[in-house]
Amino acid sequence: MATAPSVSYSMTVRLEVPASGTAVSQLTTAVEASGGSVTGLDVTASGHEKLRIDVTIAASSTAHADEIVGKLRGIEGVAIGKVSDRTFLMHLGGKIEMQSKHPIRNRDDLSMVYTPGVARVSMAIAQNPDDARRLTIKRNTVAVVTDGSAVLGLGNIGPKAALPVMEGKAALFKRFAGIDAWPLCLDTQDSDAIVEVVKAIAPGFAGINLEDISAPRCFEIEARLREALDIPVFHDDQHGTAIVVVAALTNALRVVNKKFEDVRVVMSGAGAAGTAILKLLMEAGVRHAVVADIHGVVHAGREDLVDAAPESPLRWIADNTNPERVTGTLKEAVAGADVFIGVSAPNVLDGSDVAGMADGAIVFALANPDPEVDPAIARETAAVVATGRSDFPNQINNVLVFPGVFRGLLDAQSRTVNTEMMLAAAAALADVVTESELNPNYIVPSVFNDKVAGAVAGAVRDAAKAAGVTVDTPADATQA
Amino acid sequence: MATAPSVSYSMTVRLEVPASGTAVSQLTTAVEASGGSVTGLDVTASGHEKLRIDVTIAASSTAHADEIVGKLRGIEGVAIGKVSDRTFLMHLGGKIEMQSKHPIRNRDDLSMVYTPGVARVSMAIAQNPDDARRLTIKRNTVAVVTDGSAVLGLGNIGPKAALPVMEGKAALFKRFAGIDAWPLCLDTQDSDAIVEVVKAIAPGFAGINLEDISAPRCFEIEARLREALDIPVFHDDQHGTAIVVVAALTNALRVVNKKFEDVRVVMSGAGAAGTAILKLLMEAGVRHAVVADIHGVVHAGREDLVDAAPESPLRWIADNTNPERVTGTLKEAVAGADVFIGVSAPNVLDGSDVAGMADGAIVFALANPDPEVDPAIARETAAVVATGRSDFPNQINNVLVFPGVFRGLLDAQSRTVNTEMMLAAAAALADVVTESELNPNYIVPSVFNDKVAGAVAGAVRDAAKAAGVTVDTPADATQA
Repeated sequence: MATAPSVSYSMTVRLEVPASGTAVSQLTTAVEASGGSVTGLDVTASGHEKLRIDVTIAASSTAHADEIVGKLRGIEGVAIGKVSDRTFLMHLGGKIEMQSKHPIRNRDDLSMVYTPGVARVSMAIAQNPDDARRLTIKRNTVAVVTDGSAVLGLGNIGPKAALPVMEGKAALFKRFAGIDAWPLCLDTQDSDAIVEVVKAIAPGFAGINLEDISAPRCFEIEARLREALDIPVFHDDQHGTAIVVVAALTNALRVVNKKFEDVRVVMSGAGAAGTAILKLLMEAGVRHAVVADIHGVVHAGREDLVDAAPESPLRWIADNTNPERVTGTLKEAVAGADVFIGVSAPNVLDGSDVAGMADGAIVFALANPDPEVDPAIARETAAVVATGRSDFPNQINNVLVFPGVFRGLLDAQSRTVNTEMMLAAAAALADVVTESELNPNYIVPSVFNDKVAGAVAGAVRDAAKAAGVTVDTPADATQA
Repeated sequence: MATAPSVSYSMTVRLEVPASGTAVSQLTTAVEASGGSVTGLDVTASGHEKLRIDVTIAASSTAHADEIVGKLRGIEGVAIGKVSDRTFLMHLGGKIEMQSKHPIRNRDDLSMVYTPGVARVSMAIAQNPDDARRLTIKRNTVAVVTDGSAVLGLGNIGPKAALPVMEGKAALFKRFAGIDAWPLCLDTQDSDAIVEVVKAIAPGFAGINLEDISAPRCFEIEARLREALDIPVFHDDQHGTAIVVVAALTNALRVVNKKFEDVRVVMSGAGAAGTAILKLLMEAGVRHAVVADIHGVVHAGREDLVDAAPESPLRWIADNTNPERVTGTLKEAVAGADVFIGVSAPNVLDGSDVAGMADGAIVFALANPDPEVDPAIARETAAVVATGRSDFPNQINNVLVFPGVFRGLLDAQSRTVNTEMMLAAAAALADVVTESELNPNYIVPSVFNDKVAGAVAGAVRDAAKAAGVTVDTPADATQA
């Protein structure tokens, strides 16, 4: 699939060109002829004979960026200086920082922020540990925890390489929900060790966002932490994705005038996200679901599942889906289906597969960066198409969910997160799209729609309070 | 020891008083007569009959604050409203926060800070893990780790109660050295578990500041972490204190014109700080040291030490100090000594003990809040007196050391911290006080002296580079 020039492959090239002549127009022409786009051009020094120019160019890949620089190098009279990658520049030295909320100007400030004044605050918490939610950062702080085992689509790249992603996540928590998140990238991929580490660091946090931990370990780690801790534990790859899919499907079904209870859903992918989506869809009312993985449709009689452990995720899928005992390939299962949801691999379906689905078909092809089916082709026959990409309509993006979910959990001082809260979040997100706005190309709001986080947060907060799982510390008391 | 009113026991009292008459002057008179001091007085509402006044008062203790409010309540016509504790107000909701360094205004920003742009940054680090020091927060980030077992002088108050202290520490790291520190208060006091947790979280940090972990566990935990990790591990209670004591003693010895090699040093306290001070003093040249703990002078023949394990800290002290085989009590050992250093308990010495020391005696009575000997009395006969208190000259305060030490370690990208770096830090701190400034009441600079952190950092950075223990990543490269 050809991709358009993107700011995420943007570079700034410093060049020297002759002051007279057509060198500048030759530059922009060369960039455009190579399929790049010029997004900025600054003359940073000017002389009688030479101009120094910083030209910022969006390319569509790293190779494409190199190719464009090569073309520029070929222009008569142009000397190429430093090539700076804008994305790398933004990441240099990291993307987040710690700030003190109070200035420390003098001894008086010091004596309140630190010793001796802080001792009284500590003693108050020692006497009533719940006061930590009132007198410390705990109340607004979330740990973003990963072991680097399943980072984006990049795989097991380890904790250091995961850090830029976790910093970005922390930045999004602040931007969209005012939450102070700090990344913890763990130098272990042992489930027992991860559970022990997260339990140990929990006192200073009001929530744990697990991130990019590979299946099936992520299921066990999350379950054990939920059992052990008195703060909510949320694996965003699973539940964030599940919530936004349920929200998007709620609105897609409105578009085609079908109901969760009636539709036949075929899923491709039985990993962390797939399993969580499946479970939340079933909680939302789906009764006819069939899941396929790399070995084909999952059913109780499949050879590799006969001896699977009862607690294995695939075994759970086999036992709880596919009531009609469909067998065979994904392509076979998709024939006649109302909904396809892919969280698997590129191009597992083609246009004829989508054409063979039921009338009013819904296709969520969420593999990144290349979807399960080309969305342009899918749209020829499907009624609603969504992807994970930002350059097509209906982007299924977790950023729509996790900031608001945690905002709601923190505002409620919730000790946990449960299915009711997730369904409430999905319903609230779906409802941000009004009846008059709803159409096949607008089933989810933009991530920059400023109603999203508040709507999700409010729904989650109310659901947490209704569930009776919140702490009763007055979060706004100002008296000692 | 009577203490002066302090801002760390400051409160704001809201009152209503009659608009006419002498109520306001009666208020301030009552506060002052009770030994408090009025530091602010705002009329926040005014009517024909009543004034609403917010009066801010510094007291010298919580009980004193209560007593003052009681006195105000007794004034005819005065109604007391809300009493707000200024220190608690400052701690409300915590004292630090996370900030994004870049605005996230639109999809372009999002695509560089997060997916898809971040993937290229992650892949670069996966290919060269040392690049994490260039492209992530690692380079400027320190974990402040405690188990809450020995917090300030408050004892084993646990991780949640320790959090206000660790937040304060993080705020000081930023204020004095621009370092991004984040507190991790651990829900375990098991040494093995603490070692495993800190090893696990290390990838995202360039240094570990251990804090307020009780002896003797702190020795083992630090030693094991130093062995295991490729970033510096520094227990501030030990080494921060040791460095500032060595710096202060360097200057105190200049004042009395004596040398490390010649003086007889008597220490009270063999805990974490005492042991670290002792070891660094010996590295600085001290040859005659005697240590006393609660059972008296430590010597190889002492009953409780005959069977002590060879690796126990007390055994180390017995084997490496007290060459003259002094026995008996602390008071006996102090007779004729040149230097007394207390990191133990209030009032273990009196004026006559100090009077019995050698001419030009140096007394560092560092127990907090009440020193080993009343500094006012010690000053009657000693040449130089220092305490840990901010209301006497010569405050021995770790804030003079830890920000600069970590700044130097981070700037050098040091993999460890060693004795040479600590001695370099002490020498640099001592040298901030110039010959012309040096006097018995000015042996250490103020914590707000803006030369301190830079001087300490420079010395530590140079020592780390000289030791050949630094990472060679170009920290300032801007090119991908």
